[in-house]
Amino acid sequence: MLEQRVREDRKATGKEAKFLRNIWYVAGYARELDENNRLTRRLLGEAIFIFRTGDGRLCALRNRCPHRFAPLSMGRLEGDAVRCAYHGLAFDGSGSCSHNPHGPKGALSVRAYPIVEQDGLLWIWMGTPDQADRATIPDFGRLDPQQFHVRSGYLHGQAPYELMSDNILDLSHIEFLHPLLGTPEVSQAKVEVRQEEGQVIVRRHMRGEVLPAGLAQVYRTGARAVDRMLEVVWHPPASMVLTVSVATSDGGPDWQSGSQTLHIFTPETSGTTHYFYVASLARDKAGEEAADGFFAALELVFTTEDKPMIDAQAAEIGEEEFEDLRPALLPIDKGPVLARRRLKQMIEAEC
Amino acid sequence: MLEQRVREDRKATGKEAKFLRNIWYVAGYARELDENNRLTRRLLGEAIFIFRTGDGRLCALRNRCPHRFAPLSMGRLEGDAVRCAYHGLAFDGSGSCSHNPHGPKGALSVRAYPIVEQDGLLWIWMGTPDQADRATIPDFGRLDPQQFHVRSGYLHGQAPYELMSDNILDLSHIEFLHPLLGTPEVSQAKVEVRQEEGQVIVRRHMRGEVLPAGLAQVYRTGARAVDRMLEVVWHPPASMVLTVSVATSDGGPDWQSGSQTLHIFTPETSGTTHYFYVASLARDKAGEEAADGFFAALELVFTTEDKPMIDAQAAEIGEEEFEDLRPALLPIDKGPVLARRRLKQMIEAEC
Amino acid sequence: MLEQRVREDRKATGKEAKFLRNIWYVAGYARELDENNRLTRRLLGEAIFIFRTGDGRLCALRNRCPHRFAPLSMGRLEGDAVRCAYHGLAFDGSGSCSHNPHGPKGALSVRAYPIVEQDGLLWIWMGTPDQADRATIPDFGRLDPQQFHVRSGYLHGQAPYELMSDNILDLSHIEFLHPLLGTPEVSQAKVEVRQEEGQVIVRRHMRGEVLPAGLAQVYRTGARAVDRMLEVVWHPPASMVLTVSVATSDGGPDWQSGSQTLHIFTPETSGTTHYFYVASLARDKAGEEAADGFFAALELVFTTEDKPMIDAQAAEIGEEEFEDLRPALLPIDKGPVLARRRLKQMIEAEC
Repeated sequence: MLEQRVREDRKATGKEAKFLRNIWYVAGYARELDENNRLTRRLLGEAIFIFRTGDGRLCALRNRCPHRFAPLSMGRLEGDAVRCAYHGLAFDGSGSCSHNPHGPKGALSVRAYPIVEQDGLLWIWMGTPDQADRATIPDFGRLDPQQFHVRSGYLHGQAPYELMSDNILDLSHIEFLHPLLGTPEVSQAKVEVRQEEGQVIVRRHMRGEVLPAGLAQVYRTGARAVDRMLEVVWHPPASMVLTVSVATSDGGPDWQSGSQTLHIFTPETSGTTHYFYVASLARDKAGEEAADGFFAALELVFTTEDKPMIDAQAAEIGEEEFEDLRPALLPIDKGPVLARRRLKQMIEAEC
Repeated sequence: MLEQRVREDRKATGKEAKFLRNIWYVAGYARELDENNRLTRRLLGEAIFIFRTGDGRLCALRNRCPHRFAPLSMGRLEGDAVRCAYHGLAFDGSGSCSHNPHGPKGALSVRAYPIVEQDGLLWIWMGTPDQADRATIPDFGRLDPQQFHVRSGYLHGQAPYELMSDNILDLSHIEFLHPLLGTPEVSQAKVEVRQEEGQVIVRRHMRGEVLPAGLAQVYRTGARAVDRMLEVVWHPPASMVLTVSVATSDGGPDWQSGSQTLHIFTPETSGTTHYFYVASLARDKAGEEAADGFFAALELVFTTEDKPMIDAQAAEIGEEEFEDLRPALLPIDKGPVLARRRLKQMIEAEC
Repeated sequence: MLEQRVREDRKATGKEAKFLRNIWYVAGYARELDENNRLTRRLLGEAIFIFRTGDGRLCALRNRCPHRFAPLSMGRLEGDAVRCAYHGLAFDGSGSCSHNPHGPKGALSVRAYPIVEQDGLLWIWMGTPDQADRATIPDFGRLDPQQFHVRSGYLHGQAPYELMSDNILDLSHIEFLHPLLGTPEVSQAKVEVRQEEGQVIVRRHMRGEVLPAGLAQVYRTGARAVDRMLEVVWHPPASMVLTVSVATSDGGPDWQSGSQTLHIFTPETSGTTHYFYVASLARDKAGEEAADGFFAALELVFTTEDKPMIDAQAAEIGEEEFEDLRPALLPIDKGPVLARRRLKQMIEAEC
């Protein structure tokens, strides 16, 4: 399936241009590097080989030797470089050939991608390298393990990343797709959508809501009616911060006692997606056990409710363009529509 | 494979127009509806969701919510309607939106297909709804369980439905493909082919034939030489009634003591087919055990002899058009050729 | 996968023209014919049915009945002919219809391919039949089982045959891909490449080399430093004779005491390959056990080192043309480049 999809991406004229390139993408978690400090993953249709040099520096190369296109990931790390297993050419983290057993190194090189570790995430720049500015990596906050219980997971989506963003940008689905987490108040909530500095922000305020048992435990509300806010902040191309704030009715507004969940989607190909999700709860509010329970519930819901639905949507849409099928637009789609529009503008601006 | 085929059907410009649409197709057996009164099946390339409303009415909808294209079959039946599991839109059996939790129902709708149950078969109309006339559903007879032992089965063909029709319309293959059922008389038989009221009728008369043991038992001929007639009546697009009549040499012509087999092919996609087959024997001639034996033999033959051959043919033909490969025409092909020609005319008349 | 590849080959306009046709290809080993004297294999994208007639004559037919395109391989051999299992047409080894149960034989025929057995290999001519000259089948020598221990094997490559030829034509990869067989001398060796009568010949001379244990045993050199020559002779389209000659330092130049390995690649489709390999050692130099060990080592290396690398290369190249990706050219590529160029000229000359 993956191979088939990659073939189709390549055949579609100019289809690779569909991805926003001059932006940071999450390539994985730092913990995903194996015991030999290596990780191979396809991103935006390109096979990437990520590794750490002997002195701990993080590097990312196109996983394709320029000589015969053997995957460098089949090779061996030697100090600063990876040596191709086929004919022994070695390339350092900058992509330059550091050793050619068969002649001069000349201009031999492989594409290198800027890559940075931050808060346990590996951020890669798939565009023009000299435009990569580390300062533009979004700071999601609440990831300091001293202050927060932080848990992270991964799912592989058989769907375009845009569909997966839509799912988070319109949380009215909670009531229907996640019956154990939903309340009528979520779908009846007043929804504010606005754009700010290239971000799309969707807020839902729920008043006097009695939370389902599981959530009541995580947020320590018991059976009391509480006010709650769900805020989703979309960062292009496809990272979302979902913040839940809970104001207990007896303790006044305490927006810090909620939770944060990151939903980060990185296209593997035009039709498949890496889904990285990270949840955090404040240590001074919730215990280890509550955090474990919260994360287990999220994982269950993502795996058994969101993923099957989105994969099924994608299968039904097939190779057609989502917009070409003229989906019925509802008021709840404002967030998804704004984010798609913004993304499209950014991609067009790159062409 | 299915997903790949659907993709190819969609990509091929105008390829969906290849199916005859203003005609009744068999979508399944009534008994295939599950304990929740639901059946999901792809027909003519389109995913269809079939269900019964609370009061037993049969409905068929395009299995695709018009909002985000989620399969309605993932939703829940609520009285007269199905509620989408994703964002809660509900649609009744007419395809109209009966409830929108997020705003006005407006013109929200999903395509509905006329569907009718008759003799345990679900007949669906894939064309213009107001042309659907229940009176044009073919009456195959001999399906009344009071009078007949009726047995039915299903096979999935990895072949275009036209190839599967060809197989029934030219029974000269029996001698070669079904050695246990064949007799030299079948292929040496005089074959009459004629068209009548849009049907194609192929008849084979065998004179003084000693039937193979299995058939001799079903038709109670013993080792006596008998006259037999095989008649295939093709109804467009791809339903065939195969009637076997046996005249015992001592009892005079008793054309009622034979068997009837329905062969109904409904395209799933341009290259895959739903095969519904129904056999019946008169209760006043054959016992339960003979009927079971007859059906088991048919099923074995379809599964281990016809299907592998037709799937292999289809694989060899691949994506090419059958006619473009210029098949050698033999006299035995008259039935298949007439049916294909008629079908082509009907499809062209719809364009 | 195979079916998908065949479809793509057919869709690509003129892609079948890519194969050199007027040349002998190896279709298999004579020992691969089953107990009924049959072998079915796809070659150059075409399904071929190979069989022996009752009197032992070898025949090859397009595996496709001209009537309904049923695979003839599903039929039965009857004397000189194969009878189609579907409607009983029979074809003899010349491709002529020898019996039609349904009417005159007329001009019914199926494509026949000249096919010859030589040294246990089945050689087939995929081009214009009257240009097939048995004298142009290459004589690889050293295949007489009286004089040589001969062992042969088969692998299926998920890669274009050209990539597999490249692998043999540039043996500098031994040091890196086959660490247990490699010596520094191989990659440092002086390499001579030349063309001669349409062949490409690549020679490597290693001086004063101490062979790894396994090779030292096969070539009976012990721990002594020896001179060794590796010679690869490429025959179009994709057969290579790899001769290893070893001159023991005490016994003077004895170029006969080495080994010969044939590497024969026949395209199944444009992206998949039949790999036939045959190893031989002189009986008067090596014992049965040494021959077994030698062959087991080759098989292990081909299966666990060459094949995974070449399949991975092919996956990374995907549907793109190798040359279009502009591979970096190194001096070691001279052999592969000359062979590819010669092959291209021959294919173009056929158009």
